Amino acid sequence: MDNAPIITKFKKALPGHFYAVGVGPGSSDLLTLRAVELIKSADVLIAPRSRNAKESLALQTVKDFIDNQEVVDHVYAMTRNVEKTIQLWREMAKLTHQRCSENKSVVQITLGDPLIYSTSCYLLGLVRELLPAENVHVVPGISAFQATACMFEQPLTIQEDRMTLMSATDMGRVEQALGSCETLVLYKAGKRIGELSELLKRHGLLDRARLVCYAEQGDRQFVSSDIQAAAQQDHGYMATVIVYVGRHGWDDQKDSCK
Amino acid sequence: MDNAPIITKFKKALPGHFYAVGVGPGSSDLLTLRAVELIKSADVLIAPRSRNAKESLALQTVKDFIDNQEVVDHVYAMTRNVEKTIQLWREMAKLTHQRCSENKSVVQITLGDPLIYSTSCYLLGLVRELLPAENVHVVPGISAFQATACMFEQPLTIQEDRMTLMSATDMGRVEQALGSCETLVLYKAGKRIGELSELLKRHGLLDRARLVCYAEQGDRQFVSSDIQAAAQQDHGYMATVIVYVGRHGWDDQKDSCK
Repeated sequence: MDNAPIITKFKKALPGHFYAVGVGPGSSDLLTLRAVELIKSADVLIAPRSRNAKESLALQTVKDFIDNQEVVDHVYAMTRNVEKTIQLWREMAKLTHQRCSENKSVVQITLGDPLIYSTSCYLLGLVRELLPAENVHVVPGISAFQATACMFEQPLTIQEDRMTLMSATDMGRVEQALGSCETLVLYKAGKRIGELSELLKRHGLLDRARLVCYAEQGDRQFVSSDIQAAAQQDHGYMATVIVYVGRHGWDDQKDSCK
Repeated sequence: MDNAPIITKFKKALPGHFYAVGVGPGSSDLLTLRAVELIKSADVLIAPRSRNAKESLALQTVKDFIDNQEVVDHVYAMTRNVEKTIQLWREMAKLTHQRCSENKSVVQITLGDPLIYSTSCYLLGLVRELLPAENVHVVPGISAFQATACMFEQPLTIQEDRMTLMSATDMGRVEQALGSCETLVLYKAGKRIGELSELLKRHGLLDRARLVCYAEQGDRQFVSSDIQAAAQQDHGYMATVIVYVGRHGWDDQKDSCK
């Protein structure tokens, strides 16, 4: 049976419905079957693309599943102004509403998971104001931190461990987080590797940090267990650092923990 | 093309290799294509099952993809003693090593993600001592918190938010975490809903908490936005609570955040 294709018998996108669908970090085979089925059966695909990217990374990830869908190439703002960001997504919300009114199904594809640092959150919020609640759906995707952790094969959490996920923007907040979790995951770390390296050195945690840029994005992927060395180079936006601060163990078994 | 099957052309399990594979929270269509391909092509599947379960939940999730694989039904310990836990997994590590020596491929399936509160972590650690590094692989899976979040369609993190994931065992630690993140995800909350409800009430956060038990596990799934009411009932081990504590916004745009 090894060569038999996988026959999906899962739910297709429904007319008049909107789906925010996570497509994982970049490799096509990290899509879920649910995501594939919805993308294949959608009438309209909204593919977000940053102003700097030639093509939507999310669209590249799902290209094997595209046939006759209307693909809306949406260049989104990289502004840090919330009002402006929402304003810019309003156009897509209107388009979604219009297509749904024509009994079409609309899928927004998004890299990673739609609810973890995703542009989906803006469109989703606006669409929820325009469509009936039962016509709006969110489908989870593998987030970059999960793909990153798999490369190092170390648990993110076992027993009573706490994991904190945040962006590496403010080193004061990063330092605070180091003291209140066993695993710290930092997104958007590319421009902060130098500062981060200094901070980790002060805390004696340099050898417990791992870096992956562009996880599961083919040749662009960069993996390093040496943050200090990595700080010498420029890294892009999609850089994830995992700091394995320590293990908490089971509260009633602290002595026997590794 | 809507009815065409998905032809996977992804990597099959290699002889002599071990894969810790996340199968997601329970619905078959939340498996990734990578997980499906590895499971279908594996010679041996190790399916963990708790002593109380009649059948492995992970095995139920992948049953459509099982054909001629040797299925090892492994009852794992629910002990909170680390040494004993590892001892009990040693048997599976030996079996894995043996099958790999016979040029077979071994896949351990595990509910959720193999590196997030998973029994995979124990077997993985032991197998890494027995097999060459390049023969050991981890494949991410959708974790229960992601499936849970999708039901409420609210962002887990946007902009500069921090998310903390922990078990709901110690209310002191939970209270501490409420003060240092924007989204708090609590696993294994089933037996603590009463205590948790009291704690959230004290912090004025009752209306910001959501509960899902057995997310994506068919009829067993229980969803509630009323933690206080839910505290009146018994809930199982697989209960996830998300507390949407607040939003941090962008550091340089705090005034304009919702």
